[in-house]
Amino acid sequence: MGNSFGQAFRIHTFGESHGGAVGVVIDGCPAGHRIDLAYVQEWLDRRRPGQSHLASPRAEADQVECLSGLVDGISLGTPITLVVRNKDMKQDHYADLQDVYRPSHADYTYDKKYGAKAPSGGGRASARETIGRVAAAAVAEQILKALCPSLEVVGFVDRVKDVQADISPIYTRTQVEAHPLRCPDLKAQGPMEKLIIDAKKAGDSVGGTIYCVVRSCPVGLGEPVFDKLEADLAKAMMSLPASKGFEIGLGFASTQLYGSEHNDSFIKVDDRVRTATNRSGGIQGGISNGEDITMRVAFKPVATIFKDQQTVDRQGQELVMKPKAGRHDPCVLPRAVPMVEAMALLCVTDHYLRQLPFEKARGPHTI
Amino acid sequence: MGNSFGQAFRIHTFGESHGGAVGVVIDGCPAGHRIDLAYVQEWLDRRRPGQSHLASPRAEADQVECLSGLVDGISLGTPITLVVRNKDMKQDHYADLQDVYRPSHADYTYDKKYGAKAPSGGGRASARETIGRVAAAAVAEQILKALCPSLEVVGFVDRVKDVQADISPIYTRTQVEAHPLRCPDLKAQGPMEKLIIDAKKAGDSVGGTIYCVVRSCPVGLGEPVFDKLEADLAKAMMSLPASKGFEIGLGFASTQLYGSEHNDSFIKVDDRVRTATNRSGGIQGGISNGEDITMRVAFKPVATIFKDQQTVDRQGQELVMKPKAGRHDPCVLPRAVPMVEAMALLCVTDHYLRQLPFEKARGPHTI
Amino acid sequence: MGNSFGQAFRIHTFGESHGGAVGVVIDGCPAGHRIDLAYVQEWLDRRRPGQSHLASPRAEADQVECLSGLVDGISLGTPITLVVRNKDMKQDHYADLQDVYRPSHADYTYDKKYGAKAPSGGGRASARETIGRVAAAAVAEQILKALCPSLEVVGFVDRVKDVQADISPIYTRTQVEAHPLRCPDLKAQGPMEKLIIDAKKAGDSVGGTIYCVVRSCPVGLGEPVFDKLEADLAKAMMSLPASKGFEIGLGFASTQLYGSEHNDSFIKVDDRVRTATNRSGGIQGGISNGEDITMRVAFKPVATIFKDQQTVDRQGQELVMKPKAGRHDPCVLPRAVPMVEAMALLCVTDHYLRQLPFEKARGPHTI
Amino acid sequence: MGNSFGQAFRIHTFGESHGGAVGVVIDGCPAGHRIDLAYVQEWLDRRRPGQSHLASPRAEADQVECLSGLVDGISLGTPITLVVRNKDMKQDHYADLQDVYRPSHADYTYDKKYGAKAPSGGGRASARETIGRVAAAAVAEQILKALCPSLEVVGFVDRVKDVQADISPIYTRTQVEAHPLRCPDLKAQGPMEKLIIDAKKAGDSVGGTIYCVVRSCPVGLGEPVFDKLEADLAKAMMSLPASKGFEIGLGFASTQLYGSEHNDSFIKVDDRVRTATNRSGGIQGGISNGEDITMRVAFKPVATIFKDQQTVDRQGQELVMKPKAGRHDPCVLPRAVPMVEAMALLCVTDHYLRQLPFEKARGPHTI
Repeated sequence: MGNSFGQAFRIHTFGESHGGAVGVVIDGCPAGHRIDLAYVQEWLDRRRPGQSHLASPRAEADQVECLSGLVDGISLGTPITLVVRNKDMKQDHYADLQDVYRPSHADYTYDKKYGAKAPSGGGRASARETIGRVAAAAVAEQILKALCPSLEVVGFVDRVKDVQADISPIYTRTQVEAHPLRCPDLKAQGPMEKLIIDAKKAGDSVGGTIYCVVRSCPVGLGEPVFDKLEADLAKAMMSLPASKGFEIGLGFASTQLYGSEHNDSFIKVDDRVRTATNRSGGIQGGISNGEDITMRVAFKPVATIFKDQQTVDRQGQELVMKPKAGRHDPCVLPRAVPMVEAMALLCVTDHYLRQLPFEKARGPHTI
Repeated sequence: MGNSFGQAFRIHTFGESHGGAVGVVIDGCPAGHRIDLAYVQEWLDRRRPGQSHLASPRAEADQVECLSGLVDGISLGTPITLVVRNKDMKQDHYADLQDVYRPSHADYTYDKKYGAKAPSGGGRASARETIGRVAAAAVAEQILKALCPSLEVVGFVDRVKDVQADISPIYTRTQVEAHPLRCPDLKAQGPMEKLIIDAKKAGDSVGGTIYCVVRSCPVGLGEPVFDKLEADLAKAMMSLPASKGFEIGLGFASTQLYGSEHNDSFIKVDDRVRTATNRSGGIQGGISNGEDITMRVAFKPVATIFKDQQTVDRQGQELVMKPKAGRHDPCVLPRAVPMVEAMALLCVTDHYLRQLPFEKARGPHTI
Repeated sequence: MGNSFGQAFRIHTFGESHGGAVGVVIDGCPAGHRIDLAYVQEWLDRRRPGQSHLASPRAEADQVECLSGLVDGISLGTPITLVVRNKDMKQDHYADLQDVYRPSHADYTYDKKYGAKAPSGGGRASARETIGRVAAAAVAEQILKALCPSLEVVGFVDRVKDVQADISPIYTRTQVEAHPLRCPDLKAQGPMEKLIIDAKKAGDSVGGTIYCVVRSCPVGLGEPVFDKLEADLAKAMMSLPASKGFEIGLGFASTQLYGSEHNDSFIKVDDRVRTATNRSGGIQGGISNGEDITMRVAFKPVATIFKDQQTVDRQGQELVMKPKAGRHDPCVLPRAVPMVEAMALLCVTDHYLRQLPFEKARGPHTI
Repeated sequence: MGNSFGQAFRIHTFGESHGGAVGVVIDGCPAGHRIDLAYVQEWLDRRRPGQSHLASPRAEADQVECLSGLVDGISLGTPITLVVRNKDMKQDHYADLQDVYRPSHADYTYDKKYGAKAPSGGGRASARETIGRVAAAAVAEQILKALCPSLEVVGFVDRVKDVQADISPIYTRTQVEAHPLRCPDLKAQGPMEKLIIDAKKAGDSVGGTIYCVVRSCPVGLGEPVFDKLEADLAKAMMSLPASKGFEIGLGFASTQLYGSEHNDSFIKVDDRVRTATNRSGGIQGGISNGEDITMRVAFKPVATIFKDQQTVDRQGQELVMKPKAGRHDPCVLPRAVPMVEAMALLCVTDHYLRQLPFEKARGPHTI
């Protein structure tokens, strides 16, 4: 279980890294919307490995096919099934790792839970599983564009190891996509790139953080007390492979301030209640307040490295793993940008569609 | 909606801060277990305000009553309903705040979503809502003690503003409870206490972090890909009032390391596969690996302060709010310790009960 | 588990027949509606035992109390908790049945599943559990009256054993309530009453059917393919104690017709598409079509009788059970009428609130 | 929404009758079981149209393909995706029905709910949607065979219009499959066949009932109070296209008996508690008691007939529909047999897997 996400816009992902296909069933997509599969393909291309010298050279076309839910590009209100065939299954790459528990991978825990041998390439724990999420998010974004046109989600690489980008400008997705690093801060790009290339040369890997903002989110998304918007965003992000931390608004930095320094005063701007500052990150009491929703996700340095490592095999024998060169990213961050955006979009779309009934269901009384 | 948590051990909390009662219905508690209500009361007493000079003086007895699910202290397998009456409803305290949106509180967002006026004392956004969670966790802990006796959950105050505790010792809950701060590091207690008392005197508030560890968790809890154990823990923690960040294992700090520095080698200890280090925080691929599950939760400085603040009222008028002295905590951290432990217990119990079928349902083949 | 019903208007019932209280938590009730507790009490009084010489003499006041979710009678959008205390717990009545599996009761199956001894009075399998459902339905009906004023739900006793009422008139609830039998057909009342009283004298019991109609239901409720409106109604009704069958529209009788006799032609009435007949019972393809939703529920003769019966006790000994006079209904049908109406209301309210987003979420295209 | 069924063995079906494919994602299938796709194909062949002169001549190969969840035929514990391509899309057959609401079909309600024009062939309301259910059931049956080998599910045609089969013998599936009618009563086959062929000649259709039995079901399946086993079976069956009624055990006939005639006495047989009769149909208090689970499902005469019918088109014009010969069944019953068995299997497998934890989670106390 655990392969479904969302309530009103609910997705079910399926597929192993090295099985026949990966994909998603989207349940709850409203009827009557035009869904452009070419746009879904654009998203998949952003997520796809082999985009640049910074990423894994695995050569997958990742061509999306729609099996159900659309007629002439229009949503029927029935489940939309999107599938991507797996093609480049170089299982021999992993042949000598079949029985070895790779350190900080899911091999050992999957084996203990499911009795499945070290899944070549990672099985459901592989980043390839995120294809279904990204495809679904590309549909979600089209729905949101129709229902709530001003809303937009932009993520970017915020930090690689200790090289921090300037997050203060209002970056567009076009700016982010202009460089394969997906860091729109021109000054940070050089040092970040050097870190990654040096790590690659050393057979090592680096981590960092992604910053993501949801702009023009309507007031009122989020359902206290357990389905607070930030709680669902946290779950969404922490379900991504290699993510290790999440924060909303000022997050951990907020703990260094006094309340009087952290509180966001309410002000009135053009007849609308807004906040003078946005340290809360656009959510108060678990409900969006109309300001930018800002969050940060931490990604560990990926576990696949090309150095000798101490480990144990399936038979319980200790050994030193001496990996041959494979095709993994030395840094997951650039490809994690569309994944983070995807989860933010899925989460916001889900809450947006949950919220719609409230407006009509609301009775005449206030107290 | 959004008032339920868990799948196999599922809780529904109810109650407003200033209504008749708060409480919880627990669905999925296995039959045949002895549940001690006095132990539930102990947990509620830990969470209760007015425990020390460091906390809110609100004088609630918080006496738990069981309405269903137990006969002679034994669980029937039917829903267990636990209720705490609200008593000390000094609504007049808040009378002059009725129509004012308090900065960084949920007043504005609740009003926009539900059309309910600034809920005196916070409504469902109040920390009082956590009574149901804590009561349910006290039941969960008794079930875990019976089914998985070695498992234990311990949380403590890790940092207040910029005063960091030493987290390296293996603290017991007894050590944590020995001081009202719930920080077991004797050296940190003094500076932390001073920070809080100074903030109180200044009418201000401070935040910080809670560290929490689950010890002796069995291997195999967590359900890829969306219900990864760390994803559910993140959601659990981010649903607590005032929480702003979550991390598992080394979390954000992991992003400063190379993969070769972060990976946890597998070793063999007494015929069991273990890891030489535990930077992953006891979870790999979303599934517990048997090592300590370690996490950290960030709590902002609480929004209630006794200084003048710029804001807007329900009628859209800007004003300066001049709060009289009330009864809130200058620092939520000591009382947040049992809340964090509660959410960890609920999450682990839920996944533990979900996991049980696997052991029997597993077929004879491995691949 | 299994104590929750509904998705958008979701209820969680709790409480054993002979525990402290029974009740319900309602999650998803829209904010801003006036909820009259006196009206909830009216519903509970209809369900209550001891209403007439035809029913069980158990003397429960069944006084409802609201613990959360309302302020000054207005819904807050938070969980509404309604509780009824158990008072008349004559456990000694059942003392000599403690270890006996009463035929066709739930004693044996509950014992095997939960290890709980023959629950005196029936535990969760008792009709007393339905208090929570009925209380929630009384809230649901008030919401529906506000959002969809013309909709109404009326149920009545359709048949007792072999005495069939005339179902062709359009009965009102007032007509149904005019006689304790809750059969509005004046000609059928006498023979039905005689059957029940004779059965009571003989220490026996009788069953029958309830007919229920939902009038002026909007078009569009129901979610293919598994959550078809009739599928959810079937589940709702078959979850009632002692129910053994469900049918929608002509139901089993439809199987005796040719398609040409059964199909409902579409016609136009006052610019609205309607059907010339309503053999389908107001639902087509799992979605309401705007015609009356008509259904029938079969209730077995209740298992509690005052005759000697062969059975087995908890220790596995065969014995003859010689029950003393107790306080059960010889015929559950009159009290089952509000239960059937309650489940219909809960089901329709749930689907109505699920449906609301569709209207706004619908895009501009049709295909 | 509404495209998912089950909790522990959860299926998501997708696909329109005339889209690219239909199929199912199965979530919760235990790992380590051998799943034979040839056996899944056998089930699909039983469901497939065009099997005999009694059924629709639509020529679909209905070849199943597995996209995920199996490696070398062994389940991984990850979602199993099974897909059947649509091939024979004779949309022109329906061209002149594009804008006509066919009486007693889902055309009108789907149009009002989703804004989708009269779906040629029925869209999700078509019996073709059941391919996903049947494929999932073929997997479920293999899991059950491994975990609970003696359990078996057998359904058969019980009645066509007014021709009733003798249900007293213990029929095997082999006997049922021996005749395309799927009625194992040799005496009833002739009259039933004549009814169907006569109806076909007359351009008309007939309905009837399916009887289904679950043999050797373990004691303890079913979750009070809403997820009673019979409640979930009722929902399962009433979600099948054209079903109009459901009953468990004696069902509606039970209402004609006195309690003393209906009650099932407990007896002891070979150290096991059993019932002397089985009028309850194997379920008491919502929980299986180990006796045969017996049920009956009513199917209306299918709506597609070849006679003139009064109706309305999408533009609101009344008209007389004069259908040309198409390819539908004059009687859905023979093909409904595997559908009913499939839903029974899905329901029982789901409850069986939900139940497993109870056995281990049960504590030492009984009360």
